[in-house]
Amino acid sequence: MKNQREPCIEKAEQKGYSFKGRIWIEVEGATFLGYGRVTLLERIRQYGSISQAAKSMDMSYRHAWDLVDSMNRQSPRPLVETTTGGKGGGGAKITATGEQAISHFWNLYKRFKKFLDKEAKNFTL
Amino acid sequence: MKNQREPCIEKAEQKGYSFKGRIWIEVEGATFLGYGRVTLLERIRQYGSISQAAKSMDMSYRHAWDLVDSMNRQSPRPLVETTTGGKGGGGAKITATGEQAISHFWNLYKRFKKFLDKEAKNFTL
Repeated sequence: MKNQREPCIEKAEQKGYSFKGRIWIEVEGATFLGYGRVTLLERIRQYGSISQAAKSMDMSYRHAWDLVDSMNRQSPRPLVETTTGGKGGGGAKITATGEQAISHFWNLYKRFKKFLDKEAKNFTL
Repeated sequence: MKNQREPCIEKAEQKGYSFKGRIWIEVEGATFLGYGRVTLLERIRQYGSISQAAKSMDMSYRHAWDLVDSMNRQSPRPLVETTTGGKGGGGAKITATGEQAISHFWNLYKRFKKFLDKEAKNFTL
């Protein structure tokens, strides 16, 4: 199990050393955005539904809903809008702010990967 | 508890957003250096003894010994040298390679802190 890459962990390898790390954003001591939350946002965009997004991640609907609620309450503007009832039941969609959160977070991860690559290259013992 | 800062987690704050992260170095899928291990090395330097270093960190001697053994086996040269018996019992000291590991790791953490600071400054939603 230890050799299996955890997707939320960024990684850079050099000379046998593997530099690993995680980054997340908190608001007032509580997680706001992290790898799992941003992946959930992307799945909601893909499925248009919190319950289907949750299912695709082997996550309970309740947990997914709590994560969405937490993100919406911590953001200056909601990241996800939900509609209830109507034809085909309720749905969920990502707002413009939600799209920003997704792209900002993945860009942060890309720069983090570069940072780790550079550090790994310069590391020697 | 969530509001308490964990010392192994680097942090940068901006506009209510707190950027947090952790970094560690693995060799062949197993942790080689991380915040706790490097702190243990520093305590061994301070106390000249694995058992006293362990005690100062509320860690069992066995666990500290396993960590030292793991670091020594993963490094091209040992980070800690132990002596047994003699006047005053056995002792432990940090090798030149161990000193390098300590300083390289804290410098890495300093640059990581700068990275998070910069990212936090540029983040907005």
